[in-house]
Formats: sequence, C-alpha cells, structure tokens
Amino acid sequence: MSDSLDELKARINAFVEERDWQQFHSPKNLAMAMIVEAAELVEHFQWNTTEESYQLTPEKLEQVGHELADTFVYLLRIAEVTGIDLIAAANAKIELNARKYPAEKVRGSNAKYTAYQEQ
Amino acid sequence: MSDSLDELKARINAFVEERDWQQFHSPKNLAMAMIVEAAELVEHFQWNTTEESYQLTPEKLEQVGHELADTFVYLLRIAEVTGIDLIAAANAKIELNARKYPAEKVRGSNAKYTAYQEQ
Amino acid sequence: MSDSLDELKARINAFVEERDWQQFHSPKNLAMAMIVEAAELVEHFQWNTTEESYQLTPEKLEQVGHELADTFVYLLRIAEVTGIDLIAAANAKIELNARKYPAEKVRGSNAKYTAYQEQ
Amino acid sequence: MSDSLDELKARINAFVEERDWQQFHSPKNLAMAMIVEAAELVEHFQWNTTEESYQLTPEKLEQVGHELADTFVYLLRIAEVTGIDLIAAANAKIELNARKYPAEKVRGSNAKYTAYQEQ
Repeated sequence: MSDSLDELKARINAFVEERDWQQFHSPKNLAMAMIVEAAELVEHFQWNTTEESYQLTPEKLEQVGHELADTFVYLLRIAEVTGIDLIAAANAKIELNARKYPAEKVRGSNAKYTAYQEQ
Repeated sequence: MSDSLDELKARINAFVEERDWQQFHSPKNLAMAMIVEAAELVEHFQWNTTEESYQLTPEKLEQVGHELADTFVYLLRIAEVTGIDLIAAANAKIELNARKYPAEKVRGSNAKYTAYQEQ
Repeated sequence: MSDSLDELKARINAFVEERDWQQFHSPKNLAMAMIVEAAELVEHFQWNTTEESYQLTPEKLEQVGHELADTFVYLLRIAEVTGIDLIAAANAKIELNARKYPAEKVRGSNAKYTAYQEQ
Repeated sequence: MSDSLDELKARINAFVEERDWQQFHSPKNLAMAMIVEAAELVEHFQWNTTEESYQLTPEKLEQVGHELADTFVYLLRIAEVTGIDLIAAANAKIELNARKYPAEKVRGSNAKYTAYQEQ
C-alpha cells in the first residue's frame, strides 16, 4: 500500500520531468533553492518577538504553509537525486541525537540546551 | 494503518517532550534552526562544480544524509507547532505551481526556467 | 589617502591570490559561502530570546565577531568579482529605502514596520 | 578625516533612528534579516552554472548590487548593536586564516581547498 509521502514524491518527480527540469536539479543547485525557501520562512518571523511568532493570522499561516511546502519539495528532490531515503535518514539521526543528548542530562534548561546543541 | 511519516513525527515529538524542549520551539526559533541546517547542506557543495555535486563519496553521502535529516526534523517541528499538514500543503503548492509554470511553456530552457522562477 | 576598507580589500585579494583560490570564487560559489557564514551567525542566536541576544559573554562576542568577519570577507569578494562598489551600492540602496519607507509613515510601529518591509 | 565607511555607518544609524526602528534591531532579529538578504543573492545564482554566474546582464548586476547592499547594511547594523569593529574583526580573522591555511600547503587544489575549508 503506497502512502501519502510516496504519492507526493511521485507527483513531484512527474512535475519536474514534464518540464524537463531534471537538468537543473543538481544537488548543488537544489541545496541553493532549498535555502532560499527556508529564508522566505525566516523572513515571516524576522521582526516578530518569539511570542508573536506563535500568533499567526490565517493569511500569514497560509503563507507560512507555502514556504514550508516549497522547502519540503526541494528537500524531497535532493533526497531523490542523491538517492537518500529521507525517512530512514531522519530515524537514524534521531537515534544519534538521543545518544548525544540524553534526556536526563539536558532536560529543560536553555543554558544546557544551548551548550549541548553547540557541541 | 499509520504510515512511516506519522511514526517519524510521533517519534520526534516524543524526543522533544522527553527533554522539555517545546519551550524553545517557537516558530521563530525553529525557522532559524532549520535554515542553519539547510546551510550545513549548502556548505557541502559550495566549492563543487555542478558536476562534482553529483559525485559524492560514501562518507560525503552520509554527511549529506545527516543534514537532510536535520532539516527535515525541524521542518516537521515547524509544521507541528503551526498546525500545518505538510503533505497537504505540498500537494496544494504543486497544484499552484502547475498552473504558474505550464509544462508546454517552460519545458527545458534554462532561460525560460529562470524567467518563470523569478516571477 | 587609502582608507581602512581599501586596505582590507587589498589584503583579502592578496590572501586569495597567494593561494590561487580565485578559480573557486565564482559569484555562485561565493554567494553560497557567504550564506553559510551568515547561518553560523544565526546559529548563535537561534535558541536565545530577543533579550538574551543582547547579552553576550566575552567568549560569545568573540565568536560573533568571527562570523561577522567571515560574512564580510565573502561580501567583499563578491563585490570584487562582480565589480560592484559596495559603499556606493549601499548608499544608493539607502536612498531607495528612504523613499520607500518615509520616516513619518513608518515610525515605531511593529505592525507598520512589518507591513512596509513585506511590500 | 572620516572615511566613506564611517559616513555610511552614520547614515544607516540615522535612517534607523528617524524611524524608531532600533527597538526591532536586536542581534537575533538582525541576524535573521541578514540571512534573508544573503538568500536573495543566492536566488540570483541558483539555476546558473558556475560559468553563467560570471556573466551578468546590466539588469541582473543592478539587482545583485541591491542584495549586496542590503546584506552589508544589516552586517553594519549587527556590528553596531554588538559593538564589534568590523574592519578590525576582519583583519584579525584573516590573520587566523593565514595561519590555518598556509599558502604553500593549500595552493590551487580544489580537493585540498575543500579539505582545508572543512576542518
């Protein structure tokens, strides 16, 4: 049974192939395209306080959804062209992080969190 | 039947809650964290030619997988805290893009591609 | 009389030439390198509140100085290879912004500021 | 004798104060704003080959100049609010880099360059 992520990936690949855009989708170019989309998300929050960033109007929420979608599409394309299984890679990384940041040592402190994150 | 993406999201949320890190995961902070991970991906390719970026050693490929994973984890967290359904948002965005870039008009030309992308 | 910025530019150019690194310094590659450095700056502040980001320890301040320096060096390199006069470009942009955001219309309001910035 | 960089900094500070925008210019927010501008530069080159990125039309060159200017303005603002002397920081960083990447060891090789850069 194919799931919704597989369907999305197939749809994105078809979209790219119909336009003959694979030729522009090198890992280098896609990494650039993805960070541009990530920056469009950052732009929505740059003058907000931390608190304001939780309170999104419906219009803003829709725009944020578009930026997330664009970032996700390029992320899936990079995974596609490099042959990386994104779900497996994320699961493996969480395993690593769980060992790197044991819950009992890092719980709840900003200072500790930052110190651990920066290692 | 839950799929692998739902399982991954549940796992990430549990990871964050066990560490009491929700308090740091505002949309603003998560957008910053995500672009930092996206930049770590960019760093892998910055001195490569376009061609070289396709030819990744196993070691490099593993590192690229880690950066993709980190970006994905933060993307899923942003979707979580903003209540956005990432799969639905991506499908909606592809619909929009399909109308914005009709295949017959943009096929294969770098010049056309760039011009369309920049609109 | 040459000023300190001209001296810095000459020094950076000599550094690059002594290493025969001009060949890697295309506008495309340098733009990637610069955003990677900008992200290293973002990383310092990603889990801070807005208020905390003003309170930097001497150690953190030194690190922030390194990231600013790296970003500046690549910015100057991009200006060099594209033949753009950075000071002149910045002065011209401020003129444009002064017309785009008249002081009497945008003064002090976050809402107004954001709305103007997003146009 | 004041130089052109000092004049530019004074002009930017006056621009911000006339609009009462200092309140939004925390290091955290400015780091976000700067990376957004850096990404607008990246966007200009994302689908270019390395070679194409050298060949800018006058129109594109003007746009690139705007992005460089915007990045520079935020860089100067971050230096201002953190009290960092950007020229001094850049000179100090070049000293560090000169020791880290001795010319005779790293000259001209992409492989070596990348390996050294990644340390």
